[in-house]
Amino acid sequence: MFQLDRYLKERAALVERALSGIVPDPSGPDALLLEAMRYSLLGGGKRLRPILALAACEAVGGAPERAIGFACAVEMIHNYSLIHDDLPCMDDDDLRHGRPSNHKVYGEAIATLAGDGLLTDAFKVLARSASDGVPSSVVLQTVADLAHAAGSAGMVGGQVIDLQSEGRTLTLDELKHLHAKKTGALFHVSIVGGARLGGASDTQLASLNEFARALGLAFQVVDDLLDVEATTEQMGKRTRKDEAAGKATFPSLLGVEKSRQFARELEHQALEALSAFGPSADPLRAIATFVVERKQ
Amino acid sequence: MFQLDRYLKERAALVERALSGIVPDPSGPDALLLEAMRYSLLGGGKRLRPILALAACEAVGGAPERAIGFACAVEMIHNYSLIHDDLPCMDDDDLRHGRPSNHKVYGEAIATLAGDGLLTDAFKVLARSASDGVPSSVVLQTVADLAHAAGSAGMVGGQVIDLQSEGRTLTLDELKHLHAKKTGALFHVSIVGGARLGGASDTQLASLNEFARALGLAFQVVDDLLDVEATTEQMGKRTRKDEAAGKATFPSLLGVEKSRQFARELEHQALEALSAFGPSADPLRAIATFVVERKQ
Repeated sequence: MFQLDRYLKERAALVERALSGIVPDPSGPDALLLEAMRYSLLGGGKRLRPILALAACEAVGGAPERAIGFACAVEMIHNYSLIHDDLPCMDDDDLRHGRPSNHKVYGEAIATLAGDGLLTDAFKVLARSASDGVPSSVVLQTVADLAHAAGSAGMVGGQVIDLQSEGRTLTLDELKHLHAKKTGALFHVSIVGGARLGGASDTQLASLNEFARALGLAFQVVDDLLDVEATTEQMGKRTRKDEAAGKATFPSLLGVEKSRQFARELEHQALEALSAFGPSADPLRAIATFVVERKQ
Repeated sequence: MFQLDRYLKERAALVERALSGIVPDPSGPDALLLEAMRYSLLGGGKRLRPILALAACEAVGGAPERAIGFACAVEMIHNYSLIHDDLPCMDDDDLRHGRPSNHKVYGEAIATLAGDGLLTDAFKVLARSASDGVPSSVVLQTVADLAHAAGSAGMVGGQVIDLQSEGRTLTLDELKHLHAKKTGALFHVSIVGGARLGGASDTQLASLNEFARALGLAFQVVDDLLDVEATTEQMGKRTRKDEAAGKATFPSLLGVEKSRQFARELEHQALEALSAFGPSADPLRAIATFVVERKQ
């Protein structure tokens, strides 16, 4: 019987170890930059995206180590996006993972640069992760995919749409489009990239593509639900802020009960997409259920 | 006889064409992002770094087309760094290339994201530029080198040191260290990366390494001199701002005449480093002289 708790703990430990070796211990004239980068990168979080990358690699029969550089790169990019999103000129958030956000500790200039550093260094970590088992052409493809998912066509584009949607009523399709870019793209590439580095066939990639699409959207629907229902203490970040900012959310468009139903339906679609996989995909299956059932 | 004017015009046109195809024409809900990216990317500038990448590729016998994706990536990263450096929380500059800086036109949030988009998309452009002539492993190496030069160990680290140096007296060695990171690293990788993509031998890379070191420093010394001597109108950006910000510069440490002498000495070192190259390196030679003699 597959034990998710143990799996998440072991894989998170693998990611933590790898991440803590990436940004050098602060010393010298740019110590403040490295300290600010470490503050966010090693400051907690579920490590969901890098664990998904490792789990997708394992699902197609690859050792998790083949995707560890990529997993770190994804987490670095996720953390840069949180730092920049929290800036006063963006969402202006003071709290992240239960601690003051980066610019509250280091100031706006250093926070902006810490984000820039994490984003840029992510591509170095990924490009240097080529090992004997993985051809350079495959690593290069994941560089392109990761940049596509994180850049103007993906996450950055989604953040712009999000900023411009405040106070406007979105249709359900517009909201899905927003999230497909803002959070879905990085989720998606974590899974597909991890699988590619694990040696996935085209058929496997197509199935994981569908899994990733459903899971990414489920994650966002549940995030919106938690924003309505959970307390700031539970979440470690300000809650009910969507409502305060007049942002469209799944609960505001569909209602709470229908949103919960939609999340379960997406979980079902995600699990269906894995039907051709054996027990190697059990981690992915358990994570899909975890994402929908989570309370924070 | 090699004609620099014509060479610069032709190569700049090659770069402009390639750049204008990279960011799609603005439409859809994220049009503002694409417009802001295009505003900076296609808003002028000498295109010195991408032209150096092409010239280094040609110096070792490669067709310039082999390095055009890399050249665009370098220019995108240069432009992102200008957008972020101009932000109110950084150098707070209103003018760039003779036009209002990005955040004066689009606001801080969109400017920050336009920078993020250009930085991220640069790696997509580079990773997708692999052609038949260039092995994936070489492109992957240039991804790693570019990320190293632009990230915390290079340009971003240099910007942090620069911010923290304001109002402090630096030694000449500290000033050289600052510029080696802040502007030197991207100059350096432009030349070495272009040469690598052109098929350079290790011996050629070592020579170009030395050429790039000397030229990058010469560029900065001359930039400092121009900041003292040129007018805002000539430069298209605010001048005498180093003095106003209490920043250490080469003229403030060495005096104007010794700084000019230092720049000439570096030009000489750069040309010496090319002594084993034939006429294929004439563009690089002419650019080295141009960098030291330029009036803007």
